[in-house]
Amino acid sequence: MEGVDHLAHERNKSEFDVDAMKIVWAGSPHAFDVSDRISKLVASDPGFRKDNRSTLSRKELFKNTLRKAAYAWKTIVDLRLSEEEAAKLRFYVDEPAFTDLHWGMFIPAIKGQGTEEQQQKWLPLAYKMQIIGCYAQTELGHGSNVQGLETTATFDPQTDEFIIHSPTLTSSKWWPGGLGKVATHAIAYARLIVGGREHGVNGFIVQLRSLEDHSPLLGITVGDIGMKFGNGAYNTMDNGVLRFDHVRIPRNQMLMRCAQYTCLCMPSDAKLILEPCILIRFWTSTAVCICVYCSHVMVLGRGSRLLGPWGGKTDFVYSQWSAVCGGPVGANGKVVLVVTCEGKYKQSDVPRQLVYGTMVYVRQTIVADASCALSRAVCIATRYSAVRRQFGSQNGGPETQVIDYKTQQSRLFPLLASAYAFRFIGEWLKWLYADVTQRLQANDFSTLPEAHACTAGLKSLTTTATADGIEECRKLCGGHGYLCSSGLPELFAVYVPACTYEGDNTVLLLQVARFLMKTVSQLGSSKKPVGTIAYMTRVEHLMQCRCGVQRGFAELSVDLVEAAVAHCQLIVVSKFIEKLQQEIPGKGVKQQLEVLCNIYALFLLHKHQGDFLSTGCITPKHAALANDELRSLYSQVRPNAIALVDAFNYTDHYLGSILGCYDGNVYPKLYEAAWKDPLNESVVPDGYHQYIRPLLKQEIRTARL
Amino acid sequence: MEGVDHLAHERNKSEFDVDAMKIVWAGSPHAFDVSDRISKLVASDPGFRKDNRSTLSRKELFKNTLRKAAYAWKTIVDLRLSEEEAAKLRFYVDEPAFTDLHWGMFIPAIKGQGTEEQQQKWLPLAYKMQIIGCYAQTELGHGSNVQGLETTATFDPQTDEFIIHSPTLTSSKWWPGGLGKVATHAIAYARLIVGGREHGVNGFIVQLRSLEDHSPLLGITVGDIGMKFGNGAYNTMDNGVLRFDHVRIPRNQMLMRCAQYTCLCMPSDAKLILEPCILIRFWTSTAVCICVYCSHVMVLGRGSRLLGPWGGKTDFVYSQWSAVCGGPVGANGKVVLVVTCEGKYKQSDVPRQLVYGTMVYVRQTIVADASCALSRAVCIATRYSAVRRQFGSQNGGPETQVIDYKTQQSRLFPLLASAYAFRFIGEWLKWLYADVTQRLQANDFSTLPEAHACTAGLKSLTTTATADGIEECRKLCGGHGYLCSSGLPELFAVYVPACTYEGDNTVLLLQVARFLMKTVSQLGSSKKPVGTIAYMTRVEHLMQCRCGVQRGFAELSVDLVEAAVAHCQLIVVSKFIEKLQQEIPGKGVKQQLEVLCNIYALFLLHKHQGDFLSTGCITPKHAALANDELRSLYSQVRPNAIALVDAFNYTDHYLGSILGCYDGNVYPKLYEAAWKDPLNESVVPDGYHQYIRPLLKQEIRTARL
Repeated sequence: MEGVDHLAHERNKSEFDVDAMKIVWAGSPHAFDVSDRISKLVASDPGFRKDNRSTLSRKELFKNTLRKAAYAWKTIVDLRLSEEEAAKLRFYVDEPAFTDLHWGMFIPAIKGQGTEEQQQKWLPLAYKMQIIGCYAQTELGHGSNVQGLETTATFDPQTDEFIIHSPTLTSSKWWPGGLGKVATHAIAYARLIVGGREHGVNGFIVQLRSLEDHSPLLGITVGDIGMKFGNGAYNTMDNGVLRFDHVRIPRNQMLMRCAQYTCLCMPSDAKLILEPCILIRFWTSTAVCICVYCSHVMVLGRGSRLLGPWGGKTDFVYSQWSAVCGGPVGANGKVVLVVTCEGKYKQSDVPRQLVYGTMVYVRQTIVADASCALSRAVCIATRYSAVRRQFGSQNGGPETQVIDYKTQQSRLFPLLASAYAFRFIGEWLKWLYADVTQRLQANDFSTLPEAHACTAGLKSLTTTATADGIEECRKLCGGHGYLCSSGLPELFAVYVPACTYEGDNTVLLLQVARFLMKTVSQLGSSKKPVGTIAYMTRVEHLMQCRCGVQRGFAELSVDLVEAAVAHCQLIVVSKFIEKLQQEIPGKGVKQQLEVLCNIYALFLLHKHQGDFLSTGCITPKHAALANDELRSLYSQVRPNAIALVDAFNYTDHYLGSILGCYDGNVYPKLYEAAWKDPLNESVVPDGYHQYIRPLLKQEIRTARL
Repeated sequence: MEGVDHLAHERNKSEFDVDAMKIVWAGSPHAFDVSDRISKLVASDPGFRKDNRSTLSRKELFKNTLRKAAYAWKTIVDLRLSEEEAAKLRFYVDEPAFTDLHWGMFIPAIKGQGTEEQQQKWLPLAYKMQIIGCYAQTELGHGSNVQGLETTATFDPQTDEFIIHSPTLTSSKWWPGGLGKVATHAIAYARLIVGGREHGVNGFIVQLRSLEDHSPLLGITVGDIGMKFGNGAYNTMDNGVLRFDHVRIPRNQMLMRCAQYTCLCMPSDAKLILEPCILIRFWTSTAVCICVYCSHVMVLGRGSRLLGPWGGKTDFVYSQWSAVCGGPVGANGKVVLVVTCEGKYKQSDVPRQLVYGTMVYVRQTIVADASCALSRAVCIATRYSAVRRQFGSQNGGPETQVIDYKTQQSRLFPLLASAYAFRFIGEWLKWLYADVTQRLQANDFSTLPEAHACTAGLKSLTTTATADGIEECRKLCGGHGYLCSSGLPELFAVYVPACTYEGDNTVLLLQVARFLMKTVSQLGSSKKPVGTIAYMTRVEHLMQCRCGVQRGFAELSVDLVEAAVAHCQLIVVSKFIEKLQQEIPGKGVKQQLEVLCNIYALFLLHKHQGDFLSTGCITPKHAALANDELRSLYSQVRPNAIALVDAFNYTDHYLGSILGCYDGNVYPKLYEAAWKDPLNESVVPDGYHQYIRPLLKQEIRTARL
């Protein structure tokens, strides 16, 4: 049956232009072209095969990932791939590796937080991979609470060095990817201590391993933290543990783009170097400055004055800064200013976009990844639901396709709609990032708090829904979904940490809730809500009528989290609707998207009907009508289901699932794959003579076990 | 800090007698004693350690399981453990193995479905493990739809044999545990074909492997189906694939306790052997009889008469049977009757309890297992939530325990309540099984349909909630929950198949829904609903008022499934309340259980408030009050949380989780465990010279990858 398309009858049913939908999904013809080309390149290269991943031992698995990472780099170099293409290649190789952190965290941290000189020194090494970096922030005892990190960096003026130290067991760095066995360098976050005083958490470039023989340097204890959830999955990554025993690094390895110096010793004629930038972190309310000349470190507290021997030129008053930097910041939030020798402040070249912007950027990427992961799972479950038949044979004819059961549709199609919804909200967040960046450059900070709340909330919403959705898809594949060859167990295991990293999902929702409460409290003021919270002006009256909160924020946090979710869902639905107000070319494409949008919205209404009913937004009759409509929408999506997942344009390699294979030829492939398990290398299993035969031969009492 | 109880302050807070609660949880002092003794025996024996499971390759893992299974058997034999103790030992060894199917399916199938002679021949061999059996029902193409199984068993009168054959690829047996590499025999289910006619699915004892060298017998193709979800988890089990190529077995290896013979050739004086039983399966509407004398097989269709040469004595009319056998049966349902030589029918000794009874029994076990799995996860998450601190440090004091956050409580405590609720519903189902068995013996079939619906629905409800609950507990442990050393990834992976096996959860809910609809339709008749559906008589009027169904069952199946869930939740809540109406000794024990019962009920009300509101059962004000009450209940449970999970009496070995360890000394244990990963065997990882160094040394273009 090789070459036969077992899903052809399904594809023939579809009522829209699949190729046009592929462009909509990809975002643009260019994006489609790059993805299509690179995904096929990866799929056709046996060097990137991944179907054996689940059977390998940890060491084999890890070694194989090292090989693939090197091979990917070689491919990128050999084919002279562009940066965009190289990133896509790593994406389609679809295997977590130390390179993710090197490219995704280490290099951006130096670019964002390093001085010009630091960038000039470190970036060329990193770009060529002459050094390999990781990002060592989280510790055994502290994750969400970055302010609580315990690692210390004590400045030693005698030697002009920082002493990086892990004072407690819980201060051990724990989780950083690439740290365990590979990285030669780390950006390590530590509490800066100068002259016995603590000055908040800063980043330091620390070499971990010898560039000659890869052995850990003096004072460095480093290793892998052990197995994680799932077969293959994130076990290809060497998430690491790291302890510092008084490790000394030169002063210029503190990331100083945002934490530079000016000093009382400074010569009054040093005009050129009197435009450093000074870091303010909200949680310390201090600025740390280190002099390039004498290495003197000084700390500015709130209200302190920067009065130097150069005669009062730097009469900058710190208390002014915080007025400028108003607005909510996340745990990692930093606001960066430059203070000139005249004592005037101005934004530095990189400033806030380095802060909010980076957060908006990273979280937009996570939302985009959510739509990728969910769409993969949905593609697998949809295709298999069309292949699988069970019950309902009439007169010896074929049984009913599982996808035709209403119970299956009601679980599968909302997830299909969610995949599209998340794709579009990710696209919108990309736009939001560009918009925020542009505004910041024009000194317009007005949309910042809202943008921050958007990204935090949508990161939480989409990752939670995706993790749950992948597992639901696995269950929708029945027993066979439990096999690794279905691809779904690994997809789930590799995806779920997204609910925790870059902000725990519950912590993020509480941030959104705080923002919403603040907005509500200001409704009466002149500060009008903008963007995604503009709708609040319409419920202002209502808010005033009902406001009778008699308990604290923490006490009501459970309800506030629910409110935050509702707010985020509103954004998703609104942006989906806005997307449909654009022109979308291709026969029937817009109609299909309209059906999916309605499914998404009505499914939510059904799921949360208690909230709608208790607030009087709808009546029970409305709820029943919505339910009827939902049922009818499922019937409309049914003939287009396969084409709607084809539009994701995933190769069988990327999908990594026999159940989801394009041609639907599931059973022969499952059967063949089974024989590849290492257990099948021998007919009689290893251990038969020691452990099975003594049972059968009644010799167990004398057996050596 | 060895020996220090880091959770002592939590334990001191508790307001009830934990030892008394342990008895309540175990079910009786005797049950507590056996569990306590055996779990400690297993925990203290290094032969049963399991902490290295996740790092082993498939082959190592499997071989290690073979060793443990043999070692467990040796322990049972050496210590002369009772059957109860032996079962507990296997439970606490906590590792899926081929022995599960041997003891749990193969032996019961022979006991239940084998004739006296078959039992006498096979059971002693099985009890001593001189043969090892598995249960080969599911095929690649058919799971839920047992009637659709494709394997054939064709009777060859010439040789007095059955020819077992796999006619298609999809007829390959697929999933049976123990089949892949170990079992010497299988109960294989196949369509019986006699004289060219099909007569439904029957079980056959088929030898698979040589008892001398373990090689597969002629015509048998057998192997492992490959890796499944998770590290360790079910990969210790050799779920297998099996194809038959015209494999011949003697006629007396068809399981015939329920499918025996009477024949036209039968001598009229053969009185004693004229009390065989005859199998009727609903899906074939035929009975198959095989003569012990001449091996003649005859098939009785509906209405056929059993008229033998012995003069019309067996004037039994088949059509009568189905009247007797009325009532719903599951996919596997069989109703067994005995026909005497006089032609009268009567129940056989084993009959329906072999059918419903076994189903009630197996599913009651699954519900009991659900409470075990969920309580393990809850125990881990609760203890770790008391150990973990994050944010909220005041004046340099300790940070807030995560368990004190309301958002954490609102997710964790309903699961704690669910664990207890499921424990008690499992206990009640055990009673129901005993009750049903007793009634059947007294020819009282009245409670059968209700008992069947109960067990089907509660199996579905508890396994779904448990699978979701384990994953929720993992998320409640933050990042560290993603480590295998937390125990939660493996617990989840090993648990989730419970949602699929022994009846897919959605298929089961549809059965419950069908039963509910049937009950409603009969409300006006004289047939009054009993037991858990007795409440329907109270809503009879309501039902008549609103009944306006204009669509088919399938069309409304989504709503019907929701109704079935609601019905099952009502049972759980009612039985929890009934439990509390009993006397429960121990200081404060009953009070704690009352709090948990209220949490369980009000959490459900909150979750499903849409249904309560839209049906007018509650007002929005009620909903808000319930929410307030829930918040207050969480505060009441808080000081008792650790003691409530201590009451499960789990050893650290059984929990298998560093995060959940009894003494709360989490961080040092996590740190130590990390170094045991195979990747840490060498400081410089295998693969450095081939794949890392060429990167660092800029030699990638010439590297051999």
